[in-house]
Amino acid sequence: MRKEMEELVRSAQDSICAALAKLDGGRFLEDEWERPGGGGGRSRVLEGGAVLERAGVNVSVVHGALPEDAARAMRGGAGEALPAGVSFFAAGISLVIHPRNPFVPTVHANYRYFECGEPGASGAWWFGGGADLTPCYLFEEDAAHFHRTLKRACEAHDPAYYPRFKRWCDDYFLIRHRGERRGVGGIFFDDLRDRPAPVIFSFLKECVGSFLGSYLPIVERRCGLSFTDEHRRWQALRHGRYVEFNLIYDRGTTFGLRTGARTESVLMALPRTARWEYGYDPNPESPEGRLVQVLRVPRDWA
Amino acid sequence: MRKEMEELVRSAQDSICAALAKLDGGRFLEDEWERPGGGGGRSRVLEGGAVLERAGVNVSVVHGALPEDAARAMRGGAGEALPAGVSFFAAGISLVIHPRNPFVPTVHANYRYFECGEPGASGAWWFGGGADLTPCYLFEEDAAHFHRTLKRACEAHDPAYYPRFKRWCDDYFLIRHRGERRGVGGIFFDDLRDRPAPVIFSFLKECVGSFLGSYLPIVERRCGLSFTDEHRRWQALRHGRYVEFNLIYDRGTTFGLRTGARTESVLMALPRTARWEYGYDPNPESPEGRLVQVLRVPRDWA
Repeated sequence: MRKEMEELVRSAQDSICAALAKLDGGRFLEDEWERPGGGGGRSRVLEGGAVLERAGVNVSVVHGALPEDAARAMRGGAGEALPAGVSFFAAGISLVIHPRNPFVPTVHANYRYFECGEPGASGAWWFGGGADLTPCYLFEEDAAHFHRTLKRACEAHDPAYYPRFKRWCDDYFLIRHRGERRGVGGIFFDDLRDRPAPVIFSFLKECVGSFLGSYLPIVERRCGLSFTDEHRRWQALRHGRYVEFNLIYDRGTTFGLRTGARTESVLMALPRTARWEYGYDPNPESPEGRLVQVLRVPRDWA
Repeated sequence: MRKEMEELVRSAQDSICAALAKLDGGRFLEDEWERPGGGGGRSRVLEGGAVLERAGVNVSVVHGALPEDAARAMRGGAGEALPAGVSFFAAGISLVIHPRNPFVPTVHANYRYFECGEPGASGAWWFGGGADLTPCYLFEEDAAHFHRTLKRACEAHDPAYYPRFKRWCDDYFLIRHRGERRGVGGIFFDDLRDRPAPVIFSFLKECVGSFLGSYLPIVERRCGLSFTDEHRRWQALRHGRYVEFNLIYDRGTTFGLRTGARTESVLMALPRTARWEYGYDPNPESPEGRLVQVLRVPRDWA
């Protein structure tokens, strides 16, 4: 499973970066990095592109003795706490794309496998992941396309997955102090080990494989729309909310920064620019206000 | 003490806002707000001014039954945990000024009094506060002026205060995942109750009274300097660090957002614009790089 997961995330990084670079016309910079305790990763980032203001696609394959902070924060799939110092393995791909055009939504996806104990021994293991869409302006057909693509990937494996993971996503991406979700959602799951690992792995592979089809058609549809400084201002304000969610609530971010993960790779998920204005409250009838309504009361999109 | 503290923070808000409005030429907007559990506050904010990009000066005077989250996070001055539901009183002033010109530093100050138990009973009480300076470009004479003003305010009360509170400030404002402080520091103290409340109150009054003198001369010296888009870009990147500190580490912010404080008043402290670029690492010999050195290894400024 370790080897298969590593191959999956590495080849996904290659194919996704190739497709994004082609779309944008720009080039990804690559950083290989090592984790002092074992393993490492490969960060690829494209900034200031014609279409993509910031895109980061990161894989990490790490192992070693589980740091104490990590042990305290984690639980096995069965809910028991993990002992610090136990040997662990984790492999994952994480990507965030912030386009320049305010009419093209931001997207995030992350798929990961965690295993604990010696290889082959029956230690704890689980899969986690998901993908979610964060528009500044709502195009209903884009949200529906994104959700339907994920739903199809889920239904090939278990008809109960999509409704469960869709709700989980709406719950997870809640910016509590705003009473708003970060975006229009998608799917989110964690601690998944309700069937044999190879079966869940094939579901993960399906999700990873569905990514480009869920997102690229949206980019192609919207990236030619013209926009004004006012649209960019609203985008920057929404980016501010994105930053609030990631730095305050997102487990991967807060946990990563506290346990000494590579800062630049963790914070690659932030938008390039963000803005805050006191008490900015768009007219509920405006396009900006209509987005906020949907973030307050999630809809069924699929 | 409750009444005196309330008078102090309200009159300080008036005099500080008046001086800042005069300096800028712009106008503060005011929001009075009530806390459902008791008390309330007055937020004043000036945005998009000629000199001040964003300035927020907030007072709050709240009381009621201590919320459970708050009780769990707080300790009395003697270190014991506080029981949830006990009656409490808190009054404070909090201000953050983000100037437009990248050569004018951001400043933050906060002074507060907390009391717990019925008035007159010998419950827990303490004072906290401090002021700190966050330049994007280092002018040594500005940092020295700011620190010397605070040192004088401290020394009028206890010669041990300044060195202790200066170190506390350097420790508190550490952005751990960056290995950098937020700025060049100042003073910070919490849980102060090492002498009778009226004695500490007079120290607080001295600190509050020193604020304009510690900061305005710096603004006046630097706000006429001309700057380029590159200077603004560096300022936005430093603003990104400011956001990282406030949303990840600052106790007032994380605690306030979790316990249902008024979001707009808490997040008034954020800069208007912030920026992230992957792996941005200024030349150590450049003005940008020289600032970073000082944030990594704090200096004695007074």
